[in-house]
Amino acid sequence: MPIVTIELTREGVTRQQKQELIKGATELISNVLNKDPGLTHVIIDEVDLDNWGVAGEQVSILRERGITADKK
Amino acid sequence: MPIVTIELTREGVTRQQKQELIKGATELISNVLNKDPGLTHVIIDEVDLDNWGVAGEQVSILRERGITADKK
Amino acid sequence: MPIVTIELTREGVTRQQKQELIKGATELISNVLNKDPGLTHVIIDEVDLDNWGVAGEQVSILRERGITADKK
Amino acid sequence: MPIVTIELTREGVTRQQKQELIKGATELISNVLNKDPGLTHVIIDEVDLDNWGVAGEQVSILRERGITADKK
Amino acid sequence: MPIVTIELTREGVTRQQKQELIKGATELISNVLNKDPGLTHVIIDEVDLDNWGVAGEQVSILRERGITADKK
Amino acid sequence: MPIVTIELTREGVTRQQKQELIKGATELISNVLNKDPGLTHVIIDEVDLDNWGVAGEQVSILRERGITADKK
Repeated sequence: MPIVTIELTREGVTRQQKQELIKGATELISNVLNKDPGLTHVIIDEVDLDNWGVAGEQVSILRERGITADKK
Repeated sequence: MPIVTIELTREGVTRQQKQELIKGATELISNVLNKDPGLTHVIIDEVDLDNWGVAGEQVSILRERGITADKK
Repeated sequence: MPIVTIELTREGVTRQQKQELIKGATELISNVLNKDPGLTHVIIDEVDLDNWGVAGEQVSILRERGITADKK
Repeated sequence: MPIVTIELTREGVTRQQKQELIKGATELISNVLNKDPGLTHVIIDEVDLDNWGVAGEQVSILRERGITADKK
Repeated sequence: MPIVTIELTREGVTRQQKQELIKGATELISNVLNKDPGLTHVIIDEVDLDNWGVAGEQVSILRERGITADKK
Repeated sequence: MPIVTIELTREGVTRQQKQELIKGATELISNVLNKDPGLTHVIIDEVDLDNWGVAGEQVSILRERGITADKK
């Protein structure tokens, strides 16, 4: 019955990546909690870069400065 | 003061249906909890079919296979 | 597949009232959107009076002043 | 580490206003809770007027009647 | 920067299981989206059985009838 | 009409601090968006340290290691 919500910035996440997130989150819940995967919901919430802030700065401005959240 | 959030897939819900959801949820809260309906908020959050998954599958793929959440 | 979240102040809502909210919200979704009720989830989130504010005031303080959200 | 989510109606909030909300919310958390502002996230969720209801009415209908949430 | 929220019923999830959910969700985001894991937050929200409903029924009542969400 | 939700770790936030968060968030919305403060709701959601993770680690474990989110 779990519900997993993934909030992330809207920066070109592909349909395939979304499917991988849905599949992966469902398997994680199933493996750790022994839950029937048929009852797990996953919702992906993409947020515009102007609408997300961290450290007091809009992410859209951080990106203009070349600051990303990517792995180094 | 209650806040009701309704998350559903973005599949052509009409303005009239949204108004019925808002009216119905507000009345439900008012009837069951004896709350002043003037203080109840209802928010409808429509989620793209690529962004919702159930049982590890994107709803957009389920719909392509003819699987719906409609009443039988 | 819809998910209904009801946030309200923790003020003695009974188990029976919660069941009425769950049943009523599920029927509302089913009636308005023609959705299979078996797929609808309802989550009730009770919030402590110190943790909810309206008009800049903690609800716990409003209640001490005799201000409620009940129907007149 | 706090996360601040601001839900509001989609009515022409500018990029500059969003930045002011992000900056202000981050400073508020930092001042009141003594939290490192670098760890605070702010998410602004703009909701279509058809998708928000108060007192059982769609906000889009309230606006057509000239009813706003602006300061008097 | 992603934020993952996992809502589940409060049914004895252990501290160790929570750590596995946190670790697994963070790795999933990192692997699929190439995000710096240091910026991912995971929040687990445990919901009382009286406060969660599915198919119009309180989960606490479903459990009393022997209906679980466990894998078969 | 805005709704501000503040999620933070449950680490001894006082009633007075909660009131300051409620007052400050309401004033911020009022000042930036010119909204009637009477219509703004603020909800504070305190999350147990075992139920919040960052960088793949439970906050309860980070705290045991002496890692805080406090301002330096």
